[in-house]
Amino acid sequence: MDQLTMKKQAAQAALQYVKPDTIVGVGSGSTVNCFIEALGTMRNQIKGAVAASKNSEALLREQGIEVFSANDVSGLDIYVDGADEVNPQKMMIKGGGAALTREKIVAALAKKFICIVDTSKQVDVLGSTFALPVEVIPMARSQVARKLVALGGSPEYREGVVTDNGNVILDVSHFKIMNPVEMEKELNNVAGVVTNGIFALRPADIIIVGTPDGAKIIE
Amino acid sequence: MDQLTMKKQAAQAALQYVKPDTIVGVGSGSTVNCFIEALGTMRNQIKGAVAASKNSEALLREQGIEVFSANDVSGLDIYVDGADEVNPQKMMIKGGGAALTREKIVAALAKKFICIVDTSKQVDVLGSTFALPVEVIPMARSQVARKLVALGGSPEYREGVVTDNGNVILDVSHFKIMNPVEMEKELNNVAGVVTNGIFALRPADIIIVGTPDGAKIIE
Repeated sequence: MDQLTMKKQAAQAALQYVKPDTIVGVGSGSTVNCFIEALGTMRNQIKGAVAASKNSEALLREQGIEVFSANDVSGLDIYVDGADEVNPQKMMIKGGGAALTREKIVAALAKKFICIVDTSKQVDVLGSTFALPVEVIPMARSQVARKLVALGGSPEYREGVVTDNGNVILDVSHFKIMNPVEMEKELNNVAGVVTNGIFALRPADIIIVGTPDGAKIIE
Repeated sequence: MDQLTMKKQAAQAALQYVKPDTIVGVGSGSTVNCFIEALGTMRNQIKGAVAASKNSEALLREQGIEVFSANDVSGLDIYVDGADEVNPQKMMIKGGGAALTREKIVAALAKKFICIVDTSKQVDVLGSTFALPVEVIPMARSQVARKLVALGGSPEYREGVVTDNGNVILDVSHFKIMNPVEMEKELNNVAGVVTNGIFALRPADIIIVGTPDGAKIIE
């Protein structure tokens, strides 16, 4: 079974968590694009969505779903997003699509974080396969890179990418993230770092994995 | 003695820490404006400056001092900046001028942080007299405000202000900051917070206070 079919399965299975008359938090990325398409079939049953990227916002509108600003809601029932890596503790690395800051913001609004992935995203230790994205104020790019090297990582500037917040991304490889909560906090305290792609302080609540045998739900 | 005269005394006294042929880190605000004017007298002895705000950058150029980007230097010998409050442990609240993020970035580059203030800025407990500025991604303004209320503060949106990084400022009053290091870290971990105005993880090394009896140096 190809990866796209597995992503679609996970996306479809997430619909069961969408409650009528609610505003749904929607992340971004290729698996989320499948979810937005599936959510279109429920457009008349929900109030709308809050989106974590301009791209998701546009796709939601194409599906006829009203998009609200995060500032307009006091909370969300669920937030559905993909991940670049997810470990058995439901902690994630995100930010491959450079939307990590807004994803963390919308995730923080939600009671339940539902993470939809295919099997290729499951790892034992975060940082094993995917370089950790870090969003950085442009003027601090060099000094944050030096700090990341001092912490044992190999940062690489993501050429030509500017985030929705006007910042740059450093992708840090060779980080074995043994203690994700501590690492997330440590990176948040580096001057010039806006957000890092470790989602451990607020992990997912439910993981839905698209597998060759259908969608598997880990609660 | 008026406040401006005390600020000028502190600014003038900071010149003794400027080494020849170095690039000087320069903060922002009214006391720093006095320092920039004083630094103009040394323009031929220094290589230039890194500035923490567009405003300071313009004033440095007016003084004939070359301005470098933070990304162009691997470190700075000193960083000279004012503060809105400073406690006996040389920890500060900064951000009255909305430049806190860039100030923290340039401060992190320097071996020595020299804080220049007048007597009105000295407090026993941070947060006693000044509302704590927090720089926030615009879409997270409401949810960060709710979080700050949950932490015991009274956040107020600074109307009409957009930072050099395109973000907004919440000024939080009624925070008695008994443990500045812990509070700085906690606020850094709130989704949507770019920087908070507590400078405790990296406090000042030298405080120069302009007093009615002249500049007093606290090392």
